[in-house]
Order: sequence, then structure tokens, then C-alpha cells
Amino acid sequence: MGIKSEWTRRGYEKLLMKNVENTLRHRKNKYEKILHKRGRIYIRTKNPDEVASGLTRVFGISSVSPAKETSSDLVKIIKTSVKIADATIEKGSSFAVRCRRVGTHTYSSMDVCKEVGKQVLTKLKHKNLHVNLNNPDSTITIEIRDAEAYVFAETLHGPGGFPLGSQPKVICLLSGGIDSPVACWLVMRRGCVVVPVYLDAAPFADEADEQRALDVARALFEWSIGYPRKVYVVPHGKNLDAFVRKAPRKITCLLCKRIMYRVAERIAERENAEGIVTGEAIGEQASQTITNLMVLNEAAAKCPIHRPLLGFDKVETENLARRIGTFDISTRKSGGCGGAPDQPSTRAKLDFVKEAEEKLDVKQLVEDSIERAKVITV
Amino acid sequence: MGIKSEWTRRGYEKLLMKNVENTLRHRKNKYEKILHKRGRIYIRTKNPDEVASGLTRVFGISSVSPAKETSSDLVKIIKTSVKIADATIEKGSSFAVRCRRVGTHTYSSMDVCKEVGKQVLTKLKHKNLHVNLNNPDSTITIEIRDAEAYVFAETLHGPGGFPLGSQPKVICLLSGGIDSPVACWLVMRRGCVVVPVYLDAAPFADEADEQRALDVARALFEWSIGYPRKVYVVPHGKNLDAFVRKAPRKITCLLCKRIMYRVAERIAERENAEGIVTGEAIGEQASQTITNLMVLNEAAAKCPIHRPLLGFDKVETENLARRIGTFDISTRKSGGCGGAPDQPSTRAKLDFVKEAEEKLDVKQLVEDSIERAKVITV
Repeated sequence: MGIKSEWTRRGYEKLLMKNVENTLRHRKNKYEKILHKRGRIYIRTKNPDEVASGLTRVFGISSVSPAKETSSDLVKIIKTSVKIADATIEKGSSFAVRCRRVGTHTYSSMDVCKEVGKQVLTKLKHKNLHVNLNNPDSTITIEIRDAEAYVFAETLHGPGGFPLGSQPKVICLLSGGIDSPVACWLVMRRGCVVVPVYLDAAPFADEADEQRALDVARALFEWSIGYPRKVYVVPHGKNLDAFVRKAPRKITCLLCKRIMYRVAERIAERENAEGIVTGEAIGEQASQTITNLMVLNEAAAKCPIHRPLLGFDKVETENLARRIGTFDISTRKSGGCGGAPDQPSTRAKLDFVKEAEEKLDVKQLVEDSIERAKVITV
Repeated sequence: MGIKSEWTRRGYEKLLMKNVENTLRHRKNKYEKILHKRGRIYIRTKNPDEVASGLTRVFGISSVSPAKETSSDLVKIIKTSVKIADATIEKGSSFAVRCRRVGTHTYSSMDVCKEVGKQVLTKLKHKNLHVNLNNPDSTITIEIRDAEAYVFAETLHGPGGFPLGSQPKVICLLSGGIDSPVACWLVMRRGCVVVPVYLDAAPFADEADEQRALDVARALFEWSIGYPRKVYVVPHGKNLDAFVRKAPRKITCLLCKRIMYRVAERIAERENAEGIVTGEAIGEQASQTITNLMVLNEAAAKCPIHRPLLGFDKVETENLARRIGTFDISTRKSGGCGGAPDQPSTRAKLDFVKEAEEKLDVKQLVEDSIERAKVITV
């Protein structure tokens, strides 16, 4: 983690350890020992692949390597390395040996690389391998830390970012579509615990839409093991009905979103959350032009609106959704919103929108929605 | 461009054409004809590589292919394809032929692929090529549109997004560091014309910092050919001096940023801009925790703060900066800010910050800064 202050780093590392342990417990991964040292976490286990796979979903981890542990004795390092090379390097392919070393030893890192490389070539002669330091097919890495050594051939990407819980809680408006879960995941990756809020627009949306949102939330929570898995489901059909019937059609979506922000702000208060996250991207919808985002912002006066997808292109959002595991759920058939107008305004005037709201008693609509909100644990 | 409404699409396409023509003119790229048809722009030129390279920097373009134009006569298509295959496919490698066809012809797309593939194998027998449809080393693509055909072997990635100017103008707080130019570029890619504002903190920053910011702006403007290239440089040293000497040190950075927002808001008014863009990412600095972003937001009450990097990891931002062309400029040696405290607050209280501001006559500081602002064309 790229943290500047030593004090903050220590706090973050402690939190990361807690999140890692919770993940292992949740997945019922057995381990004999877990140790944090010099920016690395070492876990001794009989199921390294199983453990590694779970840890690729823990924020704050940049990479995971299932490794063989041995002592810093050079003979043992060579023996372990040859064994791993035999198990992982394909016939006729190229390899490289890398070594990182901390502590005092009778050999240099370079000695280790040379000696291991030589022995791999000799002992696995039947495999017809060759060394390629610049662009090898496989890499055997040896990390020597004082009396211990770790040998590995595989490194899995972690999500990076900061440990969950290192930032305050935020509310996330989750529709279940492609964008909002990605926005949610991005702030989780920066350390925020999120509370998803789904606005149920029935009868303008169907039950499958609610199910889809809950399934998306469930998939997201696979990235936040050890934290609450609750979702607010707020009745929203009555609101949308009022907007469709009693206000100019071209601003329906803006009125709809503005009341969503207000509801989210109320839930933020209750949850002690310090912001609202949405999946909006500039120009992605008529309601998401720069002008209309300004009109939307005004509705949530106290709580900042965070829009991590502001500058994303649709294809980038979709790719990230695939990686997160929400894409297939979000692209399930949906009826779409039955309240959306044919010609939505792209440059609404704030005064015009507020005037429409005044005629509708928006405050009461918010009250009613909040009162009938359910909290569901998924 | 993924636009839903036909009406909006037409407007965007017209704007894109204008931006393309401006880019060609600016680069002094000669062309004989430019034509927009069915979601494609065709440019007839003697310098296809030169033209293609410039267009990879025009927002709204998803890809560019330097192609040979021929007629839809199958014999001519084959002749052109073999010529291109000869020029681009390496000896001993694999290739595939793809064909897209619009209009009425005496052959099918499949016929074209088969016939071209056969002739390439025959005519270039000395090159020892083989066909691989799933994972070819090279691809010859043939696009047939009514009476014309286009043959190409290379496709360059464009930046995607929407044409510059399709969204309103925004102000961008540009420090010259790695983050702010990337944030700026991301909103440009979504269609916003940006006006960079540099707050000159001298004597807390040195002249090289101002130069760096102007150079970064210059690099960014390479992506907005045809639009103004002006940068506001606002004196900020007096402000920072007041914060350092007369306010609690742990909130210096928050006071500093809040006044930057206020200055940006004033310039937004003058420029008729509808938002302020910053390079902040959650937790990247002490001033960028979720709690502190809330404190910052309050300073710009009228103008939304857009933070496209909110959920970016540092390494992602750096990679994008390299692609944009600002990384090398942003990573030039900088003295850093001489006003930053050792122990900045990560959870500041808004009341505490506002109280400190009241004692400083922030309003007057903003006035003085704005009055002495310079507009520089780079």
C-alpha cells in the first residue's frame, strides 16, 4: 500500500490483517500460522491455492503468491526451486530465476540465481529448458528473509487499493444495472464500507429488478467479507407515479433521481455514512449531462455525491463489471423503467425543477418512502 | 459512439466532423475528400499513416484504420488485398481475412474471405503463410460499402468517449502533478471543454512548478485541437501564508483547497463553466479522506466538484498519464509544497475549519487572488 505516514500505514496494516483473517475464516480455509512482516503477509497452510484464491478479493492486497517455505540454506533453496520448476515449467520453454534477499547470508542474490538456474538446467535436462532473462515463459522467484526462504512460480493479482474499513461508511444507490455496482466496488477498493440502497419503482419496474439488485449486492459483498451485508429496499413507485402524472415529462428522470438522493441522504444520517455513491458518468444518459448533474447535486445539500465512473467509457465499465463478477447479473433481462420519457431534458433549469417539486410535496414523499423502507440481509 | 437518441447522435457526429477537420488543418495534413457515412468517417489522403496518427487523439473516435480504397469489383478487391498482405504479413506467420459488406453485390462476404484467402496463399507462396481464423498474427479486413471497398491490415485505437464540445465547459484545478491532468483528460474524453486553473503558491512553490503546470496544460491541449488553449494562473502565496501563520496547522491543506475551490468557482462564473474538476482520489492524501472531501465540498456551494479519479489506484492513474503524454512532465523534480504540515488532519470538523476561516477574511483573500489572476495562452 502506498501510504506516506508511518502511523497511518500501521493502522491500515492492522486492518488488512483483520480482513484477511475474516476472509480465511469465512471460507473455512485452515492455516497454521499467519504473520505480518515488512509489508508482506505470510500464511502457512496446506492449501496454498485455495487460500490465495480467496485473498485476491481482499482490498489492499496487490498480489498473492502461493509459495513453498524452506530455510535460507542454499542447498535447501536449490532443492525446493528445482522441485517447483519441475512442477510448473513446460517442456521446451524458457525460464528466469529472480531472487530478493533481506538479512545476512553467506551468498549474494546473484549467487542464488546463478546456482538455481544451473541446477534447474542440469536436473531437468530431459525437459529441454533454456534461460531467458528478459521475456521468460516462467519465472522462479526466491524471497529470502533472514533464516527463511520462499520459492514460487505463480503470482496472482490482488485488487490493490486500501483495506476495507479504512475510510468511513458511504451509501450507494444501487440499481442493479451495470454501472452502479462498479461505482460501488471502486469506492470499496479505496477503503469505504458501503450500504447499498435500492429504490423499488414497482409498478414501473418488476420484481425481477429487485431480485437482480439484491443478487448484485450479494456479489459485491463477496469483496467485503466480515462486514455487514445489508441492503435498504425503499418503495419508490408512488414517487415516480407522482412525477409522471403531475410534473413536466421532460424532467421525470431528474425528479426521480433527486428524490433518490434525498432518500439516500436520510439513510446516510441514520447509518452515520458520510457520502452518497452513484454510477453516473458524464453524458451517459440525458440526466447525466454536466448541466443536469448540477441540478441533481443541489438535491443533496449536506452529503457529497461521489461519482467514481464520471470519466469512464461504457466498455471500461463493462470490463470491470466482468472482473468484479456483477456483469452477468446486471445484464439479465430487465423490463427497464416504465416511467422514462421519450424526450428527456439534457439542459434542465434548476428553478424549473424546483418549481415542479414544490407542487408535489416532495418532503412528504421522502418521509413516506423512508418510513416504508425495509432492510434486507443478503 | 454509444448514443441512444438519433437526434443527439446526429449532433455529436456533426461536432466530431468539425473536430476531425480542425485536427487535420492544425497538423497540415492534406486530404482530397472527407465523408461521413453510417457511423464511419472516410478520409481520402496520400498520407494515411500521418492522418491516422493525428486522429487517435480526437475524442469520440474509437478506432482508425489506414486503408486502401478500391471498387467493389471482386477482382480489384483481391488484387488490393494481396498487395496489402504482401506489405504487412511476415514470413511464416498466420493470417485471417474478414469482410463486412453493406449493399447489393454478386458475391457474399464469405465468398470474399475465401477467395482473398486462397489468392493470398497462392500469390504469396514464397512467404510460407498459413490461415488461422481464431488467433491470427495478422488480419486483412475488407469493408465493402455499395460501390466502394476498403482494405486494411492495421487498426489503431482511438480514445473513445464523446466529441469535445458535446458537454458544457468546466474548470479544472491543475497542479501539474500526476493526478490533475489525468482527471482533466477524463472529463475531456466525455465531451467537456476544460479551462485549467493553476494556483501559484510562490514562495511556497518555485517557478519550475508553474512552468511544469503550463507544460502539462500544453500537452493536454494536444487532445483539444481547435479549442482555446488558455490557462488561468492565480497568485496563491499570500493565501497559503495566511493559513500557515494564522490558522491551526493540521488544517492548512483543507484551508488551501477550500480557497482553491472558491477561486475556481469565481472563474467558472466568469467563463460560464458548469463544474470544477479536481484530481482527488479517496484516501490518496490526508485531505482526500471521505470525511475531508465533505469538508472541501462545502466550500463550493454553487458549483459541483467532479472527481473522476475518486476510485482510481495510483498505478492506474500513472499508466493513464503515460498514455496521455503528461507523465514525464508531471514527474519532473518539484520542490513540493512548502506549506504542508507534518500532521494533517484526516477527519476535520467543518465547524472548526469555518471558524478558522472567519478569522482570516477568506472572502477578501479570494477577491485579491482573482484580481491578480493572469490568463496565459500556451
